[in-house]
Amino acid sequence: MVHAEIITIGDELLIGQIVNTNAAYLGRELGSAGIPVLRETTVGDDAQRLLAEFRRAWKASDVIIVTGGLGPTHDDISKAAVAKFFRAPMAIHPPTLRAVRERFAKLGYKTMPEINVGQAMVPKGFQALKNERGTAPGLLYFKSGKTFIILPGVPLEMEAIVTESVIPFLKRKYRGQLLAIRHKTLLTTGIGESLLAEKVGDPSDFLGTASTLAFLPRATGVRLRISTRARTSAGAAREIKRIEGILRQRAGKYIFGSEDETIEATIVRLLKEQRKTLSTAESCTGGLISTMITSVDGASAVFNGTIVSYHNDVKVRELGVKPATLKEFGAVSEETAREMAEGALERLRTDFALSVTGIAGPDGGTKEKPVGTIWIALAERGRPSIAKKLSLDFGRTANRERSAAAALDILRRRLLSQTA
Amino acid sequence: MVHAEIITIGDELLIGQIVNTNAAYLGRELGSAGIPVLRETTVGDDAQRLLAEFRRAWKASDVIIVTGGLGPTHDDISKAAVAKFFRAPMAIHPPTLRAVRERFAKLGYKTMPEINVGQAMVPKGFQALKNERGTAPGLLYFKSGKTFIILPGVPLEMEAIVTESVIPFLKRKYRGQLLAIRHKTLLTTGIGESLLAEKVGDPSDFLGTASTLAFLPRATGVRLRISTRARTSAGAAREIKRIEGILRQRAGKYIFGSEDETIEATIVRLLKEQRKTLSTAESCTGGLISTMITSVDGASAVFNGTIVSYHNDVKVRELGVKPATLKEFGAVSEETAREMAEGALERLRTDFALSVTGIAGPDGGTKEKPVGTIWIALAERGRPSIAKKLSLDFGRTANRERSAAAALDILRRRLLSQTA
Repeated sequence: MVHAEIITIGDELLIGQIVNTNAAYLGRELGSAGIPVLRETTVGDDAQRLLAEFRRAWKASDVIIVTGGLGPTHDDISKAAVAKFFRAPMAIHPPTLRAVRERFAKLGYKTMPEINVGQAMVPKGFQALKNERGTAPGLLYFKSGKTFIILPGVPLEMEAIVTESVIPFLKRKYRGQLLAIRHKTLLTTGIGESLLAEKVGDPSDFLGTASTLAFLPRATGVRLRISTRARTSAGAAREIKRIEGILRQRAGKYIFGSEDETIEATIVRLLKEQRKTLSTAESCTGGLISTMITSVDGASAVFNGTIVSYHNDVKVRELGVKPATLKEFGAVSEETAREMAEGALERLRTDFALSVTGIAGPDGGTKEKPVGTIWIALAERGRPSIAKKLSLDFGRTANRERSAAAALDILRRRLLSQTA
Repeated sequence: MVHAEIITIGDELLIGQIVNTNAAYLGRELGSAGIPVLRETTVGDDAQRLLAEFRRAWKASDVIIVTGGLGPTHDDISKAAVAKFFRAPMAIHPPTLRAVRERFAKLGYKTMPEINVGQAMVPKGFQALKNERGTAPGLLYFKSGKTFIILPGVPLEMEAIVTESVIPFLKRKYRGQLLAIRHKTLLTTGIGESLLAEKVGDPSDFLGTASTLAFLPRATGVRLRISTRARTSAGAAREIKRIEGILRQRAGKYIFGSEDETIEATIVRLLKEQRKTLSTAESCTGGLISTMITSVDGASAVFNGTIVSYHNDVKVRELGVKPATLKEFGAVSEETAREMAEGALERLRTDFALSVTGIAGPDGGTKEKPVGTIWIALAERGRPSIAKKLSLDFGRTANRERSAAAALDILRRRLLSQTA
């Protein structure tokens, strides 16, 4: 099996100024092409470290993709390091120089800054890969079945070269040696990682040697990722389907979607199918549920609006929560949550209304109601409202995210029970 | 100088299912504590590869931070690999077992799933680092000046352990060996990377041996990052200031700001300083401005609430927009935007109210009002409202984000002009 590794270069990655999205992009693209990535390394703009890394990687991997440090300024040292490692003298590559000059002309510059001539220098034995979105070409070296490629670090430029040159090259060169690698991720909610693992049982009982199952917890729920490798796409698809069937049999009621259908998209889809409308009344979530729902294309068909009642006066005036309720039970209580949801249902004239009121933190907690105490209610036209309490402990941001996800899950279950 | 490396474990990183935010977080935190990160490696959930990586890292680095693979499920193999590498037998750590049981009780579970007992197993010679937000403790090993730490991969849990245990430990153990590492990033616009480099001149003329300057191009402009290391914070600050002075002298007219506070945090700070309150009336942004503002700790002191008027009826009933205005000018118009902001000011009783109404896309555009047409208004008690039109073309998500940022920027400018 052909396998790849990725080396990303740049101090900005090591100091955490930017997040390494290039590595994730390359992992996805190489995997889709049938070449698994077994390692990713990030090093700074330091010639000695680059040389050591190239030496290690050239021994260990079939395909090495390097990004970063190809720009025209003093801090871009990658190309010189590559030329030194492969003992390849550099020379001007006339088609690249023309492309760089044309690019400056196209962007409206009268003359090209002289520093950019360096962009057209290519080490001997390397192929220049055209960069349609910038001035630094990608560089490719192939020898004895091994491929070394270096690409600019600007994501847009890197991605264009990968799509147009790198993937086609790899598919051609390694034809017949590539596997079909497929993943499917099932989204669960309403159950923790370890309980879900108990429901699923020992994965070695049903996973073959070519498949893996991963439990990936995050704020909105645990994801189950099935991965498999097979000789053909059809074989991989069959294996994924077989494993998915077992998971759905054992934990189906917690699975609300797969891959990229988010919970908010599921809600919008179900509401549309049932021709129902929704509004929200939000306190500690501050409009997050509304933001999630309205991020879905076409949400306007099912979503009327929201009242964010951060201040108690707004709960009373805009949602009709009774001052006596606030006084007796407090803003964070089952009673207030129910009145908020019922108020939104009435005032925003919808079939369903979700409310959330709670203490997201870090301040505002008391002994009776510590930070993380959240009340959620769902009001529905013609039926009694339902309410649920959460006790969270994940910090302000995640407390808000989990509250929003839990509220949407209550509605999802209600909508599903009405379908059935 | 003490230096660190990071090893992040997880197939989900290599296949590009998630982006490696943990590495960026650790780079920032370690750097701030005076320990530069010289390398980051990502490997999959494979015992042989983990052992090889631990062996290499334990020779090469003073401080090694590993994340991932500490969960309770079958795919979490990191702890066993660590125990094997250090030849440290594992045993139940009673305080950790108590903490895990308490956590399940607190989250409302009657019994703890048995699988979680494994979370309390600690290799001999290791210190358990308490995890306030999950069940897997961090594990720390220190020997002959070297530190090896493994942390859970869930960002919230990892971050809490880093703040509460890891950084304090490292500062104590390596006291006297840490440098002050500081960065400052200047934001430029209106000039390309190579022309900016010509303006700045040869950086070796003004950089000392302890400082670097990086050119970081992205869509909105080239960023200039100054980095420096010194024995004291004051020394580092002086050096940053000296270099910034030179850059501003040579390229000042392209520099429009520097990276620090988010715009929502700036707004909350300015409102608090001026003892003013804010509300919002949102249509196409769907509560995004409200969500941003309420993500800031302590926003409740200055933020009353929001009305998300996705449906036109809500604009009329809840915000007092005149039906005649909607009929004559439409929902996406200067007039509607002003009436929405004025309605929020009145109904939510604040000093300022921001409104946004527009067509985020992908549908809903017309010839006169194409997708991306956005109207923003700012109402202020005792002063006439102001309105601004945007014409965006970045897709639904980015259109919403840019609209929210533009609305907040209008308020920011107003608040700053009132200070002056």
